[in-house]
Amino acid sequence: MDRDLLDAHPHRRFDPLKGTWVLVSPQRNKRPWQGQTEPPAEVAKLPHDPACYLCSGNLRANGVRNPAYSGPHVFDNDFPAMLADTPRAETPDDPLFRATTVRGTARVLCFSERHDLTLPELPLPVVRAIVDTWASQVADLGRTFRWVALFENKGAVMGCSNPHPHGQVWASDFIPNEVAQEDRCQAAYFARHGRPLLLDYATREAALAERTVVENAHWIAVVPYWAVWPFETLVLPRRPVPRLPDLTGAERDALAELLKALCTRYDNLFETEFPYTMGWHGAPMTDGPMDHWQLHAHFYPPLLRSATVRKFMVGYEMLAEAQRDLTPEQAARQLRMVSGTHYKSGRN
Amino acid sequence: MDRDLLDAHPHRRFDPLKGTWVLVSPQRNKRPWQGQTEPPAEVAKLPHDPACYLCSGNLRANGVRNPAYSGPHVFDNDFPAMLADTPRAETPDDPLFRATTVRGTARVLCFSERHDLTLPELPLPVVRAIVDTWASQVADLGRTFRWVALFENKGAVMGCSNPHPHGQVWASDFIPNEVAQEDRCQAAYFARHGRPLLLDYATREAALAERTVVENAHWIAVVPYWAVWPFETLVLPRRPVPRLPDLTGAERDALAELLKALCTRYDNLFETEFPYTMGWHGAPMTDGPMDHWQLHAHFYPPLLRSATVRKFMVGYEMLAEAQRDLTPEQAARQLRMVSGTHYKSGRN
Ligand SMILES: O=P(O)(O)O[C@H]1O[C@H](CO)[C@@H](O)[C@H](O)[C@H]1O
Ligand SMILES: O=P(O)(O)O[C@H]1O[C@H](CO)[C@@H](O)[C@H](O)[C@H]1O
Repeated sequence: MDRDLLDAHPHRRFDPLKGTWVLVSPQRNKRPWQGQTEPPAEVAKLPHDPACYLCSGNLRANGVRNPAYSGPHVFDNDFPAMLADTPRAETPDDPLFRATTVRGTARVLCFSERHDLTLPELPLPVVRAIVDTWASQVADLGRTFRWVALFENKGAVMGCSNPHPHGQVWASDFIPNEVAQEDRCQAAYFARHGRPLLLDYATREAALAERTVVENAHWIAVVPYWAVWPFETLVLPRRPVPRLPDLTGAERDALAELLKALCTRYDNLFETEFPYTMGWHGAPMTDGPMDHWQLHAHFYPPLLRSATVRKFMVGYEMLAEAQRDLTPEQAARQLRMVSGTHYKSGRN
Repeated sequence: MDRDLLDAHPHRRFDPLKGTWVLVSPQRNKRPWQGQTEPPAEVAKLPHDPACYLCSGNLRANGVRNPAYSGPHVFDNDFPAMLADTPRAETPDDPLFRATTVRGTARVLCFSERHDLTLPELPLPVVRAIVDTWASQVADLGRTFRWVALFENKGAVMGCSNPHPHGQVWASDFIPNEVAQEDRCQAAYFARHGRPLLLDYATREAALAERTVVENAHWIAVVPYWAVWPFETLVLPRRPVPRLPDLTGAERDALAELLKALCTRYDNLFETEFPYTMGWHGAPMTDGPMDHWQLHAHFYPPLLRSATVRKFMVGYEMLAEAQRDLTPEQAARQLRMVSGTHYKSGRN
């Protein structure tokens, strides 16, 4: 279909990774906004905040003292959503009232001792150390649990309850919805085409270039053709890689570089600490062939027009279908056009 | 499974209407909240606001003047996400880059001329007139379009861009994701059990009573067994009804009464204009048997602990699976325990 047609007219695009559609309304870009605006992200932050319960050496809410860590630091979440010793039980086979107890665990991953530096502001070796920590969490918890969720909620607007830059690790003895869905779609594609869906996709996006934000020899970050959030991106390796622990040293270095470059562009877009939820999807830790699974990271950022005007996924989105205004191609172009140097970098 | 087990331990529940799971973590209820809080809902509102572009007789953003309406009033959305005359086009059959243009339309439904009265505060005859308007919009737009989405985004936190109480109508020539999913699940249940899934469910919930919030001779509102949002509810008729236009006069009266009662309890829970997205799902306007389809309304309210502390569906929820802290049974109990008289009613 003609690109001009998609740039100008309401249409739907299909997400082959999830098997769902998104409604794109490019003509709606100019609608005025009189609704809620977000408070600007906190600006003046200390390198070490005595009141922060995640800072190195500080006392946590539960009375435990953090060690004097530097670089990435992992500890158990004080309020985990899952526990390792839950008694096993299931409802009898009832199609309307079905429940099963679950086992799991949750950890917090402080990116570094610096309370004031988010991912794109951290030195490259620290970002590389975060990549290694993600990989070792998957390897470690994957021995006990079938799924290890690695994610970061960044910014108060994304429900982040502590400004100290950190991610989370939630492991479970079940495969969660979103992962099960991606598993089904990737398996169906592999059965039909004999190659991983996301490897084919990365190859084609690299050739097309119009949705690429940043890339290097090992990785590519694109606004996916089926992006739901205004500036959503998908981070993909360029060779088949099922899980984070499978990455080579060179691939980890290149990933650190790409993540720093991507998040720098995010921050520069509206000159703010760009909020998002990001996380990794790799092959679940189950037996059986995983050739269809390709490792990838999703970035879901809510901002739409400025540091204070976000996209709300409500109403039509919750009850019918995700909807976006600007096209993925327009979003990618905006992210490519901003500087690759962090807007704060002159300040320090 | 033992109710005590579900009250105390992390578990998953299955949503038979969508075919997805939700993670329930009752032990996590007491976690402290240091994250974002919402501004309290606007309090002092005028019956007629000269600055409001939805009020009766006022000028809209695009220069059109609203008529001097009273009661429900429908007009075309000035910034529709879909248009009636979009050229038809589809991408060639490509599994990774799939798009199709769409046709549709969007309208706004002002609940009444009163700028200051939300649904539970409106007189019963006006709520009944809203029910009739919903039904006639489905009948009218359903002649041209396959799906008519009726919804209300209430409150700034739910992306509502104008405080004048109003809902929206978006019609499309396609069946959106959420509806397609419910269609599949209801059809599969009907094929197996010979009765509509949600009719069986309403019958069983009425007998159990532990998740019921309000009910009358024709309707029941429950916190569904698989609720995702803290105080989510599902509104169900007690006989087979595929679509809103199929409701009798007595059923419409009873629905107006039930909606007013339900929203009154919502408002009383935290003494605030309880924000939510709500909307109707009835059988799509397509040919073919619709015996499996049961009309229902979903209420998705974000508040969790108070008028200013909401549940964020981020991180784990976006990348893995919806998660909730309090159980649906606890939520239903809280909603049953508050007064049935609106907290503002002494004030007017
Ligand atoms: O149409 P409104 O009220 O301006 O906009 C609101 O509802 C729409 C439909 O749910 C959403 O797409 C928007 O994100 C939301 O802000
Ligand atoms: O664990 P936190 O940061 O306190 O909480 C945040 O992340 C969780 C996991 O995505 C969500 O369930 C919460 O709603 C959110 O506020």
